[in-house]
Amino acid sequence: MLSEFSLIDRYFARRARTNTRRAALGIGDDCALIAPAAGEMLAVSTDMLVEGRHFLPDVDPRALGHKALAVNLSDLAAMGAAPLGFTLAFALPKPREDWLEAFSGGLFELADRYGCELIGGDTTAGPLNLCITVFGSVRQDDALRRDAARPGDDVWVSGTPGDARAGLGVLRGEWPQVQIDRADAAHFLRALEFPEPRIALGLALAGIARAALDVSDGLAGDLLHILERSHVNAEIDVDALPLSAALARLPRALQLQCALAGGDDYELCFTAAQAQRGAVEAAAQQAGVRVTRIGTITSPDMAASSASPEAAVAAQDGAHAKHKAQAWPAIAWRDASGAPLNLTLQGFDHFHAD
Amino acid sequence: MLSEFSLIDRYFARRARTNTRRAALGIGDDCALIAPAAGEMLAVSTDMLVEGRHFLPDVDPRALGHKALAVNLSDLAAMGAAPLGFTLAFALPKPREDWLEAFSGGLFELADRYGCELIGGDTTAGPLNLCITVFGSVRQDDALRRDAARPGDDVWVSGTPGDARAGLGVLRGEWPQVQIDRADAAHFLRALEFPEPRIALGLALAGIARAALDVSDGLAGDLLHILERSHVNAEIDVDALPLSAALARLPRALQLQCALAGGDDYELCFTAAQAQRGAVEAAAQQAGVRVTRIGTITSPDMAASSASPEAAVAAQDGAHAKHKAQAWPAIAWRDASGAPLNLTLQGFDHFHAD
Repeated sequence: MLSEFSLIDRYFARRARTNTRRAALGIGDDCALIAPAAGEMLAVSTDMLVEGRHFLPDVDPRALGHKALAVNLSDLAAMGAAPLGFTLAFALPKPREDWLEAFSGGLFELADRYGCELIGGDTTAGPLNLCITVFGSVRQDDALRRDAARPGDDVWVSGTPGDARAGLGVLRGEWPQVQIDRADAAHFLRALEFPEPRIALGLALAGIARAALDVSDGLAGDLLHILERSHVNAEIDVDALPLSAALARLPRALQLQCALAGGDDYELCFTAAQAQRGAVEAAAQQAGVRVTRIGTITSPDMAASSASPEAAVAAQDGAHAKHKAQAWPAIAWRDASGAPLNLTLQGFDHFHAD
Repeated sequence: MLSEFSLIDRYFARRARTNTRRAALGIGDDCALIAPAAGEMLAVSTDMLVEGRHFLPDVDPRALGHKALAVNLSDLAAMGAAPLGFTLAFALPKPREDWLEAFSGGLFELADRYGCELIGGDTTAGPLNLCITVFGSVRQDDALRRDAARPGDDVWVSGTPGDARAGLGVLRGEWPQVQIDRADAAHFLRALEFPEPRIALGLALAGIARAALDVSDGLAGDLLHILERSHVNAEIDVDALPLSAALARLPRALQLQCALAGGDDYELCFTAAQAQRGAVEAAAQQAGVRVTRIGTITSPDMAASSASPEAAVAAQDGAHAKHKAQAWPAIAWRDASGAPLNLTLQGFDHFHAD
């Protein structure tokens, strides 16, 4: 009250109050009241974004507003859930009107586009920190879980992974020896700053795909989560990876680093029975998103009874082609001819701490 | 992975996985899946706690774990909702095993006591920040909203507000001229560090009370939220305020400062029709919580067509007894004889920034 935090009320609470449609009770009471549609479950996910870790201090606030919600909507997409609403809690060192206007602009532009309503929140003074919890609606039997992949399934990925990681490289000036033209750099930065949650694709894949997740920490590391939860392995054709024209102009080693271990893609990686190929293509067309078949789910030769995340990474590090399928979960890398590839991905960004 | 953050998996995710009962799908997938009971709504609230603002850097981590969840459960209590589950997102500068063990111990002790299950989360490196979103279940018609108070209603409060604020005073050494004995100081500190969410009382009051909220920013300021949302005023008998024996031993001015403007009480302030007095007392007895009638809801002489929070505070500042009910929302303060009191509460803790 009476404070600079009334700015926040202006940019968020007031808008939320007038926008309330799906919540029976929104901002301004102790709790919001919501319910999924009859026969559906509420899908819930939470993500926290911290300055210096998930975004740089000089980030464009409009891009930050977009991305803070986009990474959460991406989790709904990966479940095949339809967005309903979200809560926003954030700490700000010192609210600035122009910053809040741009941030809330980016946030609500995306929220409105997906009919995802702000139903509650909390604001406080403190080091910049954004915590969004998002709510969606999905039929329990249609939910795209991580534990549903089966041997023989195709492995698919949407969009062109790796562009966001290339954007980070541009921003950090990581590759001074590599010539990147302005249009390509702009393409990479846009992928990093304005990821598009694959909501329409997730909804279209419900009942068609088996396992799915969204790629936030790099395709290789995230695919391992599906393998671990589904008790399977995978063979991936590295030459089949869908690369943007811009990424394809980088040196091959950088292409693979970005596409497989980059992070921040927010594309969907999913599996589906081979018999569903036509249905998957039709779903992608309906959603207006490119999807590409990049490999196959395989049976692990040895099924470990319980694997920790540490074991998963150790397995990944040791997943040289000549020892294929001796570990689980593991990815066997191939080229277009089916010949084994010896990829070393450790030390790249997707092995960061969270 | 492979990082110190595997500690977090040990203290949180593993426990959450084995504990999952209410959620159809919990930690380890892109989203958790939950649903309220048939015919009920999901009550949702989110609170962010920041070091230096909501707790001191040297806080006992067990107390912090308790309080982080308690302040969220308190929001469910204020809606009359039954706890279902929560998500926990937090940023930690550098995870320490002993700290995480104590923090998670305090958190899960409370969560288990109320059958409130950890269903999802996010962890990251960063300045210490805790963000919990809590989920409860309530019938829409039974929800204790802030906008339901009516003229003639009694105003009630649970417990003994002010003790937590006195605990903060003790911790900060704010009142060196006041003699506070060790047992009283311990009582105050416990109120500050281990607030008990009034879940049982909130559930027992469903269908009996009208408006309710939990007192987090001080009784006077929080009551104004009910008055604002319900378009009413109130008269409060200051001599009727329920004070703990320990608080009653402080100077009278400090008693009122702590009880009316202190914050961090997490007691329920609620209104109910006079005909419900017996039912309220029975509900409190069933819940094992003391409740006290402290005043009456009144009609505003002038109903403002739209009041901003700034106007509410201005009205409060100007709510001298001789001008009673000229502003809305406003509280008229009385003593036990009904004589008007001229209380000045501005500048105290409940006018902080969030």
